Amino acid sequence: MFEAYYLLEAKGLIHSKNRSGHYVSQAAKALPPEPEATSRPDGQARPVVIGELVLGILESAMTRDVVPLGSAFPSPLYFPLARLGRATSAAIADLDPWSTVDDLAPGSNALRQQIALRYLVDGIKIGPEQIVVTNGAMEALNLCLAAVCQPGDTVLVESPCFYVCLQALERLGLHAVEVATDPREGIDLAALEAAIVRHRPKACWVMTNFQNPLGSSMPEAKKQALVELVTRHRLPLVEDDVYGELYFDNRRPAPTKRFDREGWVMHCSSFSKTLAPGYRVGWVSPGRFLREVTYQKLTTSLATALPVQLGIARYLERGSHEKHLRELRLTLRKNRDDYIDAMSRHFPSGTKVSRPAGGYFLWVEMPEDVDTIALHRTAMDAGISLAPGVMFSASRGFGASVRINYGHPLTTRVDAALQTVGRAAMRLSK
Amino acid sequence: MFEAYYLLEAKGLIHSKNRSGHYVSQAAKALPPEPEATSRPDGQARPVVIGELVLGILESAMTRDVVPLGSAFPSPLYFPLARLGRATSAAIADLDPWSTVDDLAPGSNALRQQIALRYLVDGIKIGPEQIVVTNGAMEALNLCLAAVCQPGDTVLVESPCFYVCLQALERLGLHAVEVATDPREGIDLAALEAAIVRHRPKACWVMTNFQNPLGSSMPEAKKQALVELVTRHRLPLVEDDVYGELYFDNRRPAPTKRFDREGWVMHCSSFSKTLAPGYRVGWVSPGRFLREVTYQKLTTSLATALPVQLGIARYLERGSHEKHLRELRLTLRKNRDDYIDAMSRHFPSGTKVSRPAGGYFLWVEMPEDVDTIALHRTAMDAGISLAPGVMFSASRGFGASVRINYGHPLTTRVDAALQTVGRAAMRLSK
Repeated sequence: MFEAYYLLEAKGLIHSKNRSGHYVSQAAKALPPEPEATSRPDGQARPVVIGELVLGILESAMTRDVVPLGSAFPSPLYFPLARLGRATSAAIADLDPWSTVDDLAPGSNALRQQIALRYLVDGIKIGPEQIVVTNGAMEALNLCLAAVCQPGDTVLVESPCFYVCLQALERLGLHAVEVATDPREGIDLAALEAAIVRHRPKACWVMTNFQNPLGSSMPEAKKQALVELVTRHRLPLVEDDVYGELYFDNRRPAPTKRFDREGWVMHCSSFSKTLAPGYRVGWVSPGRFLREVTYQKLTTSLATALPVQLGIARYLERGSHEKHLRELRLTLRKNRDDYIDAMSRHFPSGTKVSRPAGGYFLWVEMPEDVDTIALHRTAMDAGISLAPGVMFSASRGFGASVRINYGHPLTTRVDAALQTVGRAAMRLSK
Repeated sequence: MFEAYYLLEAKGLIHSKNRSGHYVSQAAKALPPEPEATSRPDGQARPVVIGELVLGILESAMTRDVVPLGSAFPSPLYFPLARLGRATSAAIADLDPWSTVDDLAPGSNALRQQIALRYLVDGIKIGPEQIVVTNGAMEALNLCLAAVCQPGDTVLVESPCFYVCLQALERLGLHAVEVATDPREGIDLAALEAAIVRHRPKACWVMTNFQNPLGSSMPEAKKQALVELVTRHRLPLVEDDVYGELYFDNRRPAPTKRFDREGWVMHCSSFSKTLAPGYRVGWVSPGRFLREVTYQKLTTSLATALPVQLGIARYLERGSHEKHLRELRLTLRKNRDDYIDAMSRHFPSGTKVSRPAGGYFLWVEMPEDVDTIALHRTAMDAGISLAPGVMFSASRGFGASVRINYGHPLTTRVDAALQTVGRAAMRLSK
């Protein structure tokens, strides 16, 4: 019965209101359908040239005056920054000066113990000594790729995939092969194996939970099959799992790391999206590539700032994190429903909108003739940022899609912004 | 008269005692001579393969039980960590949540203003908007090289040069050309120009003040000539100036950045050696490469942790930093004299020892038949770390040299360690 509610809710047919009960949505009949078609990238390996495009779009939105529909960050007001700050102050007051020498790379022992504990709660046995603390997940991703790839090598990515991955490939001189990806269940394993055989890649990069931008999540059996596949081909798998704890159903979806017996998975995550924006603390559990990744960290930035590591460790030790996460998940779930509802009112008919079961992004497929780069420009003129689909593709696909951030409350201003975007899309689709 | 004392002191003929006066050193007549010969590297461009060697040596010394003669860090007890911690706590308590989004790359405005102010005091006009905050100078260096070089490109370096530079070249797939370097006055400009013409390098990397490991410092006129040279050849100059504020004479030696009219100098520094070990806060003022370096930062680690940036900014605003620096300089100068004195007693005759006018490293040339890798191994067995000369050369030169860290007080234990090293060297030289 409970499961049935989640199913209905995931389909947008009902929504929960302050946990007090479930109500059939008024607008249920009008909700936009989900994207269904698996992407069909051309399967070619190509150098990535995306930097200027992405930078231009991000720079245009880097001010707090803009309505952040295109932002990659949730509202900073959703985080316990005051409580975390007090824990950080307490940790700094207790700082052992010698720890500034001892506790450098691969990271603070106190923090790595807390991370190991969280893995354990999720049924994954990873010791503190198998964890490298990084300057956010972005550094973790870069270190992993640098650890196993040389310039000119090929990396398999999802289609669409997070632009940060494409930027990393470009910076490291790597070629991308985009692999067909289902908007609900993630990367297509048959297409993945074909690409492995054809391109002999040096790494594969995936987001298995609440993928950015699609919101797709791999079913558990598919994750197991993915691990078996990369193990059989001895292919390093970089797993970016930064949204895994922001689930809306009743339990955390496992990362593929849980099924990794031989160490081919490099599991990356961070506290930036769950606890500590601006602290820039992430980590990687690099499996068999521990030494290589540690060396990359040592020679790239030496270490992550100790005060912020110790502050997060202290906060986690104090034990209020789960309560905060529960509240954050409920908030984001409500936002998801509110935004989909608003889109059903404001966006052109024919628009498709994803139903992610976690994270804070919606993937929106506009009618085919809507050029979302043009839409982004029009929106920026009205003080609204968007993340057009081409940001998420090395081959400039997804020209009619946009990613919408629902990590901010649907205020009257945001609702009006969605209406502005919807109207502009209608004009462009004529 | 005052200058004459400094001169005598630099030559080791007198030393100051607690600022209460100058005394002719008892052991003055026995002090080891300075290295004088300019290095003579072979001038070949070569890929760098140094990582495993350096990592092995560093790993062996990464425990606080070891006498840290080979360490790259000064004693953490020399820094006002409690005062800095209080400033950081105050800054965190005042943290505006939205700043975690706004104040990402290229860094906190408050901190960049403080850095700009420090430049101004040194007669250099660099606005906050021309500064990129980094995770220590190591990241700054990496970002600069990545901004102007592609894999396979050639970079000119000093001979010897800091191993962190060699590690960066190796990681980025760059070739090194070592350029003849004078142990007192730094890189040889005629040799540098010849290498520019011969190798068409994409960058040159230098430490102009208190070079690690030599302790050399370029005279001001030579710095001006260096800037003219790289400007004429349109060659990006990466200037690592992390020791510039640790001068023992009466004023801060200028960085080449001061003479840079056309923006070819990328000036890198950090707070790690002067104020905040473990905070991992550095910066670069990249001149005409501002956009390229900013983009590298955005796609490598996105941003530097905000709490530590704001903490350092708050500390600097409070105005006690100069007093701390004055004390630190006096402490390090005393250590320098103490260590040289101890070496004159313990090291084999024929040993040459540098006389740096700042920083915390001595460059020690042992008699030619002393293999300092073997010496390092013997020392490690006795719980003493050393930094053997081959760490500082892409061509495995300087086999009879070691770098000695005098950034820790010369305790009885350290004196005994120097004696142990000296005796082992005597055995090896037979």
